[in-house]
Amino acid sequence: MADTLIKADLSQSPYENDMIHNRWHPDIPMAVTVKPGDDFILECYDWTGGQIKNDDDAADVRDVDLSQVHFLSGPVGVEGAEPGDLLVVDLLDIGAFPQQQWGFNGFFSKQNGGGFLTEHFPLAQKSIWDFEGMFTKSRHIPGVRFAGLIHPGLIGCLPSHDLLAKWNKREQALIDTNPTRVPGLANPPYAPTAHMGRLKGDARDKAAAEGARTVPPREHGGNCDIKDLSRGSRIYFPVYVKGAGLSMGDLHFSQGDGEITFCGAIEMAGWAHLKVNLIKDGMAKYGIRNPIFKPSPIVPTYNDYLIFEGISVDEAGEQHYLDVHVAYRQACLNAIEYLKKFGYSGAQAYSILGTAPVQGHISGVVDVPNACATLFLPTQIFDFDITPNADGPTKFISGDIDMPIAPDRV
Amino acid sequence: MADTLIKADLSQSPYENDMIHNRWHPDIPMAVTVKPGDDFILECYDWTGGQIKNDDDAADVRDVDLSQVHFLSGPVGVEGAEPGDLLVVDLLDIGAFPQQQWGFNGFFSKQNGGGFLTEHFPLAQKSIWDFEGMFTKSRHIPGVRFAGLIHPGLIGCLPSHDLLAKWNKREQALIDTNPTRVPGLANPPYAPTAHMGRLKGDARDKAAAEGARTVPPREHGGNCDIKDLSRGSRIYFPVYVKGAGLSMGDLHFSQGDGEITFCGAIEMAGWAHLKVNLIKDGMAKYGIRNPIFKPSPIVPTYNDYLIFEGISVDEAGEQHYLDVHVAYRQACLNAIEYLKKFGYSGAQAYSILGTAPVQGHISGVVDVPNACATLFLPTQIFDFDITPNADGPTKFISGDIDMPIAPDRV
Amino acid sequence: MADTLIKADLSQSPYENDMIHNRWHPDIPMAVTVKPGDDFILECYDWTGGQIKNDDDAADVRDVDLSQVHFLSGPVGVEGAEPGDLLVVDLLDIGAFPQQQWGFNGFFSKQNGGGFLTEHFPLAQKSIWDFEGMFTKSRHIPGVRFAGLIHPGLIGCLPSHDLLAKWNKREQALIDTNPTRVPGLANPPYAPTAHMGRLKGDARDKAAAEGARTVPPREHGGNCDIKDLSRGSRIYFPVYVKGAGLSMGDLHFSQGDGEITFCGAIEMAGWAHLKVNLIKDGMAKYGIRNPIFKPSPIVPTYNDYLIFEGISVDEAGEQHYLDVHVAYRQACLNAIEYLKKFGYSGAQAYSILGTAPVQGHISGVVDVPNACATLFLPTQIFDFDITPNADGPTKFISGDIDMPIAPDRV
Amino acid sequence: MADTLIKADLSQSPYENDMIHNRWHPDIPMAVTVKPGDDFILECYDWTGGQIKNDDDAADVRDVDLSQVHFLSGPVGVEGAEPGDLLVVDLLDIGAFPQQQWGFNGFFSKQNGGGFLTEHFPLAQKSIWDFEGMFTKSRHIPGVRFAGLIHPGLIGCLPSHDLLAKWNKREQALIDTNPTRVPGLANPPYAPTAHMGRLKGDARDKAAAEGARTVPPREHGGNCDIKDLSRGSRIYFPVYVKGAGLSMGDLHFSQGDGEITFCGAIEMAGWAHLKVNLIKDGMAKYGIRNPIFKPSPIVPTYNDYLIFEGISVDEAGEQHYLDVHVAYRQACLNAIEYLKKFGYSGAQAYSILGTAPVQGHISGVVDVPNACATLFLPTQIFDFDITPNADGPTKFISGDIDMPIAPDRV
Repeated sequence: MADTLIKADLSQSPYENDMIHNRWHPDIPMAVTVKPGDDFILECYDWTGGQIKNDDDAADVRDVDLSQVHFLSGPVGVEGAEPGDLLVVDLLDIGAFPQQQWGFNGFFSKQNGGGFLTEHFPLAQKSIWDFEGMFTKSRHIPGVRFAGLIHPGLIGCLPSHDLLAKWNKREQALIDTNPTRVPGLANPPYAPTAHMGRLKGDARDKAAAEGARTVPPREHGGNCDIKDLSRGSRIYFPVYVKGAGLSMGDLHFSQGDGEITFCGAIEMAGWAHLKVNLIKDGMAKYGIRNPIFKPSPIVPTYNDYLIFEGISVDEAGEQHYLDVHVAYRQACLNAIEYLKKFGYSGAQAYSILGTAPVQGHISGVVDVPNACATLFLPTQIFDFDITPNADGPTKFISGDIDMPIAPDRV
Repeated sequence: MADTLIKADLSQSPYENDMIHNRWHPDIPMAVTVKPGDDFILECYDWTGGQIKNDDDAADVRDVDLSQVHFLSGPVGVEGAEPGDLLVVDLLDIGAFPQQQWGFNGFFSKQNGGGFLTEHFPLAQKSIWDFEGMFTKSRHIPGVRFAGLIHPGLIGCLPSHDLLAKWNKREQALIDTNPTRVPGLANPPYAPTAHMGRLKGDARDKAAAEGARTVPPREHGGNCDIKDLSRGSRIYFPVYVKGAGLSMGDLHFSQGDGEITFCGAIEMAGWAHLKVNLIKDGMAKYGIRNPIFKPSPIVPTYNDYLIFEGISVDEAGEQHYLDVHVAYRQACLNAIEYLKKFGYSGAQAYSILGTAPVQGHISGVVDVPNACATLFLPTQIFDFDITPNADGPTKFISGDIDMPIAPDRV
Repeated sequence: MADTLIKADLSQSPYENDMIHNRWHPDIPMAVTVKPGDDFILECYDWTGGQIKNDDDAADVRDVDLSQVHFLSGPVGVEGAEPGDLLVVDLLDIGAFPQQQWGFNGFFSKQNGGGFLTEHFPLAQKSIWDFEGMFTKSRHIPGVRFAGLIHPGLIGCLPSHDLLAKWNKREQALIDTNPTRVPGLANPPYAPTAHMGRLKGDARDKAAAEGARTVPPREHGGNCDIKDLSRGSRIYFPVYVKGAGLSMGDLHFSQGDGEITFCGAIEMAGWAHLKVNLIKDGMAKYGIRNPIFKPSPIVPTYNDYLIFEGISVDEAGEQHYLDVHVAYRQACLNAIEYLKKFGYSGAQAYSILGTAPVQGHISGVVDVPNACATLFLPTQIFDFDITPNADGPTKFISGDIDMPIAPDRV
Repeated sequence: MADTLIKADLSQSPYENDMIHNRWHPDIPMAVTVKPGDDFILECYDWTGGQIKNDDDAADVRDVDLSQVHFLSGPVGVEGAEPGDLLVVDLLDIGAFPQQQWGFNGFFSKQNGGGFLTEHFPLAQKSIWDFEGMFTKSRHIPGVRFAGLIHPGLIGCLPSHDLLAKWNKREQALIDTNPTRVPGLANPPYAPTAHMGRLKGDARDKAAAEGARTVPPREHGGNCDIKDLSRGSRIYFPVYVKGAGLSMGDLHFSQGDGEITFCGAIEMAGWAHLKVNLIKDGMAKYGIRNPIFKPSPIVPTYNDYLIFEGISVDEAGEQHYLDVHVAYRQACLNAIEYLKKFGYSGAQAYSILGTAPVQGHISGVVDVPNACATLFLPTQIFDFDITPNADGPTKFISGDIDMPIAPDRV
């Protein structure tokens, strides 16, 4: 078995583990170093570092400190890696810890994070998902069970100083357009809760003050939350610093396209078995700006779908110009209304869309003024038949179970 | 064999065929009437009504009259259909005409229609695709061949008067925000080129002046350009008028998600074999606003992909807030740069993305401020291996063939 | 559109069409000649030449003249083809005739042909399958509908004189072990009903007396009845005579692995669109004895199966040594018993296994003394759920419809 | 995490572990007891109990004591299970031990076990396969790597006394037809190496003398070696004794249909996570004689195949009557010849067919006198392109690496 190079002791705060960090900065020292061709295991905290518990109270979701996220394992230095190379990463396997066979999904309060449908679901809610081998189900959402499409939500290499500066500049410019918005348009550097790995002293403080937050995906990959970047896939990452500095975390047992619930997929702590290689000067050779990848040959084969359409006219009837975000929101809302006819609460339906392997497609993006987005809901994950028929839907779900909800503190 | 209820004589102008129309309006008389349970065949013009020719000159794409599109076959009245019902349509089969085994793809001039990447490809270009049974290839784009995922780009039922009024109002409001933009933000009713089917006289003139243009997808479906709504699928359409009034056209031999080239997919004339049924009061029973559908069990099984990521930072480096449209554009541009390394021109690469069964996924849409879109490029459609390797790409494509281009008229 | 090189007039006896033949012999003249790279269409009679009718009487199945089969279209000569080459054949498309949108399936009487389960179903029965675009269903077997996996049951090149002599010798040797068996162990040449295409006079009579029957698959391919050799696939055939001499027929709209009902798959007349190429000296280059092929990228995606096992202990409890034939028979009988619990008659269940895209796998073939065969029954072809549950099966099928049966003549 | 109810200490002989047994007999006491709805983990020895080593010498394969196999973990008693019930088993997950990330494949000597192609490969050979997360490759067979389709080769419930008697009787009758054959037609009970679990004293000796060997699959399932019965699948087993008595072992990391190499698949020690339930009186309700199952939604998605045909004419040219065993042997031999053209030794090619997820289909089984079998070889498992082309094959494999071979002892 490959060596476990980074361990995550879940009984310990990730801040006490110096092979963990929660900001992107080129000065973070490599936690470990490997050679091209090596395979090894990294253990990871869940993205919140243990803030969310396996219980029936959504207060922890409401009160989460989002300035702490995401806790990443790394950086892993790769010998010989130089800026301009491609770092080839095989995700050989990923799993939960034997002693922690569960994950969480939830919606943040609109006052603290929000989410894709925060106007419709403004309060914190959560669901707990138990793992049964390759499968998962939730005590808070009956009638649905599916195989995991396990993947890291967040993985990428350290940015260079130049790249970091570019990120901070463009994101601050966006914030400046509406600096008091709740939730904020972007998250600027925030030193108080920064965890800079082994970086200490003044160097740590300087880096903490400028280290990029881990929330958005960026050129290096990062928090892409791409469900298809799953165990078994091979990724080609741009390298920006000597040694590459690969970090990862935010493991998901399963997620729907868009990670629309934001908190998040089925979030879990766990481990990943990786193998690394290099394509020297690969960025120029292949014209690479963002990571590219080949998906896994082992993915759930759910292929019977019910597909919902959405167009870029919003809930208020307002016309948007080729706005796929609005269109996908409508497709999601349509699917939620549909599932409610079978007895689910809106929150339960929303959670299914955030956790199950649903696909979100950009179906049409040129037919002015309406973008068309489609949501592919796999029918085989339900215990019952959700196909329309002449008699209308049966309420298979009795409604006596719902997801915990936590009212905002006044 | 089922009866052909509407015929399309390609040697004749679609304006001379009164079972064709090119606007949406509830007053357009049913061209034919069928019963629930009937199956039948409709023939269709290509969406431009024959404006684009099988030749090596893109002038026809440059000079296309977009006020004429799309020529639709219908409306088909369904006995017993009433507002609030769902019209269940089985797309039993779709094909090209034996005597016209080709289709076209192209980019409009930015001066006349534009498209998804019009800033990068501002001039009219086209490619012609020959069909070989279930497969297609183009003399303008070597090295690529694939099976067709044949589908109607446009299909839906007539709107009610109320729904039509709502469309016109909201779209005009958008236009009013920037009425002189080129290309326009939306297309208002335009009577001179309206084809209102069998509607004649004053009634025709009134309807032509208010008939909705067929370009965007809307609540009824319409020009969704969803590649997965392919032959073999079953669609559930909202019904807004007595008799439903199903119309269709804009047949595609194949298309990538987004139809990014706008002109369009692989566009063709042809026929469709349909079967209709009703779910009475189905809109309320299932909470339906937009059509839903089940995809076909017969689709190309290309499943080996190279996947490109894009984030919502535009080509100029500007940060956009969770803008999937921008993110998908970046993913597409990334794929184009990549394919150029194998010898394709940018235009050829763009066309491949517009025509082949590529998937466009809304992968992440909550990680502020960046949306993440992914483009799945099937590797099995190429004659050569496009996977990255340590040696870098081989220029399999010599570059001596390119797509016809037509400079704008001065 | 490609030219139709061989036409099949279904109102005419195939014996009157000199581009048809029903025996394998190297002296049969080429009916047409094409060049490598050409694509073209061949029309085909159904394998019996029209003996089976679209009605509700199985007498035609009982009385079929099996000495006449199979009526093949060809041979097609390919310029430049020489013995030792591989003839590359693309099955670009295959379909039924517009005016004949149906096919038949049946069991022969044990007295005239028999079949895989002839001990259990000794009398002639048939079912008629109507085509609805890409789908089929039968008025004789309710509750089941599926997309066609359309393919030629029989396709291959003419044998050389040496190869023909080898066939006749080894098959006669088998017959000689039990010459009076009913049904016979093999079918020797039989001149009276031979159709030798354009071969006339003494040459015809000589060839008719030695022409191999078309029933079995052999080194050249021939009557392989491989459902996966479907439209869209590419086949590499050994060439034994100058010009190759490709012939084909026995079109199937759909078939299960094994073609266990023998009469046969869903049998139909129709057309095939082919393209040919050559790999010179390909047999030696690739060590080819039998055809090889790449399957189609367009096949029905039914992937939810209920799988039945069978071992090589026969119905009487007798132990056979690693006999896959016996094991597959048990798997089929197990599936039939299972389906009867839902209300099907045994004959209906048997027909489903013969016509739907079921897979038959050689799962274990070394664990002495029992071979293990598995039958994969796609669950998605049924209108109802056939998965086991704690309550036991529901009789969805009322039993008021059955397949026509024809008692043997006394 | 579920409890591990049976542990396998690989440093200990399985004979010392009384929760292991290697014969089928109803008197073997339950090793553990669970309730319907429970999930739990069983650890398993490899089928030989550690006789084969991770080295480069095939002497262990040559000298294996086959009277010892298979070492099974169990029996697991299920409360409430009675004869006639169906035991529903979910294979929630299966894996290798972290400290033993490898498996073996080999051919037995014809003098000691033999195998499917023992006439062509009469000497003992082996290959060692290293696991890299979900993937495997062998240092003895370059150029090939694939994802595991992990499954138990052997799983089933204890037979009743009556069923056991029937097995022994029919298998002895077969042996009696040629009692001196090498390898034997079947394996009769053999007490000296029997491991009867917790059964002790006279009861043990009596049961050991009549306990059925574990080699063949039988009515209860047993050694089916069905690759599709993989982790994630759900199996419905007939129950013959009170408490059911589920036992399992013979874990495979991957296997081709037929397990043609006999020693065997990629054989490994490991663990399985199971869940059990009951369908009371399920055998009668569903007409079940042999187990049925639903395959996993998580299987490798290799779907690009090169398919080889074989007919029931053997290597000597002799004609067999509808013998699928002979036909599949020809298909396998054809694939081996083909792969040799790319540089593989025959033994390497044979091993690939035995280990990779190849499919073996019973394609035609009625076209007298030839059965037709097809072997589906996935092309995506090779590092290079194995598709035929006009230039002929390239020898990608240099031939400097081969599998260890062990000459028979004289």
